[in-house]
Amino acid sequence: MSEYKLALVGFGSVGRALARLLVRQAAIIEQYYRITWRVVGIATRTRGMAVNPDGIDVLAAAEEVENGGTLDAFHMGNAVNNTETFISVCAADLLFENSTLNSHTGQPALAYTRAALNSAMHVVTANKGPVVYGYRELRDIALANGKRFLFEATVMDGTPIFSTFRIGLPASRVIRFRGILNSTSNVIITGMEQGKTFEEGVEYAKDIGVAEADVANDVDGWDAAVKTAVLTSVLMDYPLRPQEVEREGIRDLTSVQVQDARAEGAPIKLLCSVQQADGNCHAVVKPTQIALSDPLSRLDGTSSGVALYLDTLREVVVAGIDHGPEQTAFGLLADFINVVRGY
Amino acid sequence: MSEYKLALVGFGSVGRALARLLVRQAAIIEQYYRITWRVVGIATRTRGMAVNPDGIDVLAAAEEVENGGTLDAFHMGNAVNNTETFISVCAADLLFENSTLNSHTGQPALAYTRAALNSAMHVVTANKGPVVYGYRELRDIALANGKRFLFEATVMDGTPIFSTFRIGLPASRVIRFRGILNSTSNVIITGMEQGKTFEEGVEYAKDIGVAEADVANDVDGWDAAVKTAVLTSVLMDYPLRPQEVEREGIRDLTSVQVQDARAEGAPIKLLCSVQQADGNCHAVVKPTQIALSDPLSRLDGTSSGVALYLDTLREVVVAGIDHGPEQTAFGLLADFINVVRGY
Repeated sequence: MSEYKLALVGFGSVGRALARLLVRQAAIIEQYYRITWRVVGIATRTRGMAVNPDGIDVLAAAEEVENGGTLDAFHMGNAVNNTETFISVCAADLLFENSTLNSHTGQPALAYTRAALNSAMHVVTANKGPVVYGYRELRDIALANGKRFLFEATVMDGTPIFSTFRIGLPASRVIRFRGILNSTSNVIITGMEQGKTFEEGVEYAKDIGVAEADVANDVDGWDAAVKTAVLTSVLMDYPLRPQEVEREGIRDLTSVQVQDARAEGAPIKLLCSVQQADGNCHAVVKPTQIALSDPLSRLDGTSSGVALYLDTLREVVVAGIDHGPEQTAFGLLADFINVVRGY
Repeated sequence: MSEYKLALVGFGSVGRALARLLVRQAAIIEQYYRITWRVVGIATRTRGMAVNPDGIDVLAAAEEVENGGTLDAFHMGNAVNNTETFISVCAADLLFENSTLNSHTGQPALAYTRAALNSAMHVVTANKGPVVYGYRELRDIALANGKRFLFEATVMDGTPIFSTFRIGLPASRVIRFRGILNSTSNVIITGMEQGKTFEEGVEYAKDIGVAEADVANDVDGWDAAVKTAVLTSVLMDYPLRPQEVEREGIRDLTSVQVQDARAEGAPIKLLCSVQQADGNCHAVVKPTQIALSDPLSRLDGTSSGVALYLDTLREVVVAGIDHGPEQTAFGLLADFINVVRGY
C-alpha cells in the first residue's frame, strides 16, 4: 500500500467532479491498486488557495466553493498567493492541472505543467493547451524526470482514446481519422434538427450546461480545431497547431438546411478530419453531411467519438455517449491510476 | 534489443495472416519496441509440424500450406508427431494458440494453453475456448509463472476491447453491455435487408469467406453466445458459460420481417446483451430491433462492436468496421507487443 499526495490546480466543475469521484471510488482504488491518496493542495484563480500536508477535506472544499465561498479555511501555514508558488510548496506527487485555459497560447496551463514536471510531480490534465502547444517538450521533460504527463480527459470527455491507442493499437500508424468532438455544436445542431433556430439551439446548450456564456469558441469551430490538433499531435505524432486547421464553424447553418440534410439521410455534423500523406497532415473542421451508414452520424447531442483508420486495423470507432464533466473527471482518475500502475 | 522465440499452434487463415503481419511490421516492431522475433515452430492438425531453432521462413511456410503442401520441409531434427510434444520441445518464449476449437469444451486449446503456460511460455490466443472454459485458472497459472495469457483477438476481430477495458477503464465496474458480435449473422441479415432470402444470405456469407461450411454455430447464435461468455468472464469477472446464455438464432427471420424492421427505423440485429444485478449476470442473445439512434444499429456486414455501461462512464462504444482475419491477426500481434512491454 502506498499513498499518493495529490494537488489540484483549478477547481471548476471538472475539478470538483474529480474530487467527488476520488472519494466515491476510494475503496475500489485501494482494493484493486493498493493505493490511498490525500489531497494536499487546491489552487483556484478566484477562490483562493489551500495547502495542507495533512490532507484537505475535498468534499467540504467543493461545497464551500459551490456556495460562493473561498478555500481560505482549508489552508494551513504561510499564505500562498500565486499558482507558481503553490506548485513549488505543495509537495504533491501528482498534479491535476485544470486551470482556465487560453487555447490560443496554451497558457497558463503550459507553464504550470512544465513547473510541476520539473518539481518531480506527475501531471494529469484535462487541458488541451499543454498538449497542443507543448506535447513533445512536456513528454520529454517527463521522461527525463521519470514522471508521466497524461491527458486522457482532453478530448471526448474521458472516453479512453489515448490509452486505447497506446495499448490497444501498437505497431500501427494512424493514416486518417474523423471525429465529432465539440459537444456544444453537436447539441445546437441536434436542436436545430428538432425545429429550434440557431439562437434557440445556443440557448438550449447553455441551459443544459454544455456551453459557456461565450459560445464563439465552439460555434466557430475553434474548440474542435484545438481537439483535432491534440489528436493529431498524439495519434500521428505530428505537432499540428490549431491555427493550421482549415476551419469553418456552424454559425451559417440554417434549421432548414440541417433538417433537409437529416431528411436526405445524411445529417450535418461539425466533422473534424485529418489525413496524413507524405509526412504532412491536412486537417479540416467543417459542417459536413455524414451518411447514416456511418456510426459517427449517430453521435447526437453530448456524444462524441472518433473513427481511426490505420495501416493495421481498417477502422476502429471509439465513442462516448452522453458524456459530461463527471466523465471528464473519470479521464483524470484513469490517468492517475495508470501513473500508479506505470502504464 | 531482445529476441523473442515464437511458436504457432494452428496455421489457418488467422495464423497465416499473423505470419505475414509479423513480417510486414517487423521493422516497426524493432524500431519502436526494441525487439526482434523468430518463429521456431509451427504445428498444424493436418499439414504436419515444423520445429527449427534457427527460425522458420514463415512466408514460405504459409505459401506451402496454401498450395496444399505440408510443413515437413521446414522441420529440423527428430520428428514431432503431436501438439503436446511440439509444445514441450519447441522452446519458444511465446505461443500463439490458434488451433481448431471445440467451443462446447474449449479443447484442445485449453489443454495446449495450460501446457504452454506451464512450460514457461506466454500464451496469446484468438481462441475463445480457453477464455470461456478456463479464464480464471489460466490467468492464475500465468500469474504464478510470471507469464501472460492474452486474448484480444477472441472477439471483434482484433478491435481493442480488452486492452481498452484494462487500461482505459480502471476503477470501474461494467454494469451492462450490448454487442453485435457474430459477423456471419450480421452479413446474412444485411443481405436479407437488401432482398436476399435467408439461404441466399448464407451462401453470400460463405462466398465472401466470412462463414464456415457449417453455419449452424453462427445462425443458431452459438458463436455469439460464446463471445458473450468471453466478454462477461473478463469485463465482469463473472465466469459465465455459453450454455447459460438465453439464446435464439436468426434461422426463423424472414426477409420481410428484416426489411419491415429497417423501414420502421429499427433494424434487426443479432444482439448480445448482459445485465449484472445482485452479483449475477443475465445474458441474452437474440434477434432484436435496434433504434437508428443507437450507434450499434449502424454496424452492418462484417462490422462488430460493443457498448459498455459503467459506474463511471455512462456508455462507451468500441467498434471495428469491416474487419476480418487480417485484423484478428493484428489482435494477436498487439498482445505479443503488450507481453513484451509488460502491460
